Amino acid sequence: MSAPIRSTHDALPGLVAPAGEGGGEDDRRARAAWSRLAEPGDALARRLVDALGPAEALEALRTRSESALDRFRPRLASLDVDRDLEIAARVGARVVVPGDPEWPAGLEDLERPPMCLWVRGPRTEPVDGVAVVGARACTQYGQTLAAEIGHGLAQRGRTVVSGAAFGIDAAAHRGALAAEGPTVAVLACGIERPYPAAHRDLIETIAQVGLVATEVAPGSAPTKSRLLQRNRLIATMTEATLVVEAGLRSGSRHTAGVAADHHRVVLATPGPVTSRASAGCHEMIRSGLAALVTDTSDVLEMIAPVGTELAAPRSAPDRVGDDLDPGTRRVFDALTRPTRSVDHLARIAGLGEREVRAALGRLQLRGLAARRGDEWCRG
Amino acid sequence: MSAPIRSTHDALPGLVAPAGEGGGEDDRRARAAWSRLAEPGDALARRLVDALGPAEALEALRTRSESALDRFRPRLASLDVDRDLEIAARVGARVVVPGDPEWPAGLEDLERPPMCLWVRGPRTEPVDGVAVVGARACTQYGQTLAAEIGHGLAQRGRTVVSGAAFGIDAAAHRGALAAEGPTVAVLACGIERPYPAAHRDLIETIAQVGLVATEVAPGSAPTKSRLLQRNRLIATMTEATLVVEAGLRSGSRHTAGVAADHHRVVLATPGPVTSRASAGCHEMIRSGLAALVTDTSDVLEMIAPVGTELAAPRSAPDRVGDDLDPGTRRVFDALTRPTRSVDHLARIAGLGEREVRAALGRLQLRGLAARRGDEWCRG
Repeated sequence: MSAPIRSTHDALPGLVAPAGEGGGEDDRRARAAWSRLAEPGDALARRLVDALGPAEALEALRTRSESALDRFRPRLASLDVDRDLEIAARVGARVVVPGDPEWPAGLEDLERPPMCLWVRGPRTEPVDGVAVVGARACTQYGQTLAAEIGHGLAQRGRTVVSGAAFGIDAAAHRGALAAEGPTVAVLACGIERPYPAAHRDLIETIAQVGLVATEVAPGSAPTKSRLLQRNRLIATMTEATLVVEAGLRSGSRHTAGVAADHHRVVLATPGPVTSRASAGCHEMIRSGLAALVTDTSDVLEMIAPVGTELAAPRSAPDRVGDDLDPGTRRVFDALTRPTRSVDHLARIAGLGEREVRAALGRLQLRGLAARRGDEWCRG
Repeated sequence: MSAPIRSTHDALPGLVAPAGEGGGEDDRRARAAWSRLAEPGDALARRLVDALGPAEALEALRTRSESALDRFRPRLASLDVDRDLEIAARVGARVVVPGDPEWPAGLEDLERPPMCLWVRGPRTEPVDGVAVVGARACTQYGQTLAAEIGHGLAQRGRTVVSGAAFGIDAAAHRGALAAEGPTVAVLACGIERPYPAAHRDLIETIAQVGLVATEVAPGSAPTKSRLLQRNRLIATMTEATLVVEAGLRSGSRHTAGVAADHHRVVLATPGPVTSRASAGCHEMIRSGLAALVTDTSDVLEMIAPVGTELAAPRSAPDRVGDDLDPGTRRVFDALTRPTRSVDHLARIAGLGEREVRAALGRLQLRGLAARRGDEWCRG
């Protein structure tokens, strides 16, 4: 079997895929190597790996001199997969690759899925969850809301996926942890690095009971472009992305856009129009990108198979007399504590006396009107 | 010309419309009479008036004995149109009827439009405005928002129509008045009555500079059913209904429903999900009844002819480097204040040295990178 690489300007014409299947542990090591050599989402690396398999692509890099491959050479020189695996092992991390039972199936919807995931934590079943993301510079309102929804989703057995960032992300994780529910933190840096550093304990706790994952090799710093690429993982390894507070310009909005592009459900919570932290959410709702939700029930209703998780209808309790026909209602409204004559009620209600008497009869039956001699009052 | 009445159970078979046109002042007086005899939206009165004209229908009421007409008799006995007109004249009110230049055209979309309007105030052109309504039990947030949007709409020459009620209604009127802009209060009681009484001054001010209108005759009290019927006037005499705060069960929601039924634009402002006063708005947005708006610009964009009132795009100012291609961006992100070698930058950015040099050249041209000997730093 051979699969020629697409001949775009930076592809490598002439390279063909190896015969047979890529090997198990070789494949895993090679993917680990690629996660160091190539930046997340790198198009050329993805094409090479797709065409040749990870191990052969790595071998090609070592043996061929095409200038298109130059971008990988600076890192190739210092590549040491054993050292990376050792650093990972020291924090109890493992490398997960496509085909492993715990590989999140949703990632395969990406044009350029990660080469592998470096993960820590006991959670090994495929992630089936909801992304809860939002502003780092959030308000107390947003923080409370994210924690409540994170808590509610976890209570209902949903995995809360987020980025362990300050603000909304951390609140969502903490809500899920408080419910002793599953939560997954996807990082933009090496698996052994707690980032942000102030969240060392939070990330450690998530690693104890849930899962911490990243697509970049140990030692990698969380650069801006890696943070953006990280968002695509959060958006596609989940069924839905909920944005709780986001400014007009925010990473969360980017995550929501990726989720929408991949046909995931996109949700946002509203807030005061005076709050800049809600402006991005309002804009997403206004533009139709996101649906408005106000609590866990709303979220579940939006992601559950149709009919299985209907949020309780939003309605206030019925008031006395709500179900009366309009004429009877008018008579009921005309009744007071002091009694009134039928004639008087007829003028007030704008009805004939016969109609008023009939209505009074109906009201009396229901205990809503009472007769005092020739006059009537509220029952 | 004759138009037979539809023979429904409570219509009057046999009555036919008079020859010729209904007379000008007779028509006006007869409509004034009907506004006392029949409750707003009364179906039988509407059929009679549609079939016979207001004056002939009144005559029929006086001369015929069908029991279907009984509902009007209690009030017919005490009917005194001259007295009603005199009470109205005392507060400077006039009777406006269909065909008058100031009759709001939108009312004709109603199945049962008012017989006439009792109005006070200098505003005589047809109302062309926006209804701003909401909870009586509103929050300070809602009150401020309604006042701001009322102010903004009035500044842009839009008439702010509301119900002069406590809470959102009053705030919207006051916002418009503060902008010295047009505002219309539609009441559910007689034109000479300030209701609520605490809004005597507000209603008086609106009557001085805008318009106060009602479809019920002088002396009428604001009953619940009249308040509901009043809502249909607010909803249809305007292009759009904006709900600023509403509980799950509210008159504003009713107004919004009527507006939607008559193909008007329905809008709602969001608020904190923890605020019961916003729950109705969120539900309207969630269900698709209302579109989310956050300020005057949003409202104008939703009601203006397409393309003429685009709200300014919601976006934060560009940040340095936003427009860079991804590779150049990665090099830019890798640059720091202390200088770094090209080799170092290549490893950080995950690019070949040649690509890094090319990116540095582009960045240098834009002043975003600077060379110090063999090394580079931020420009």
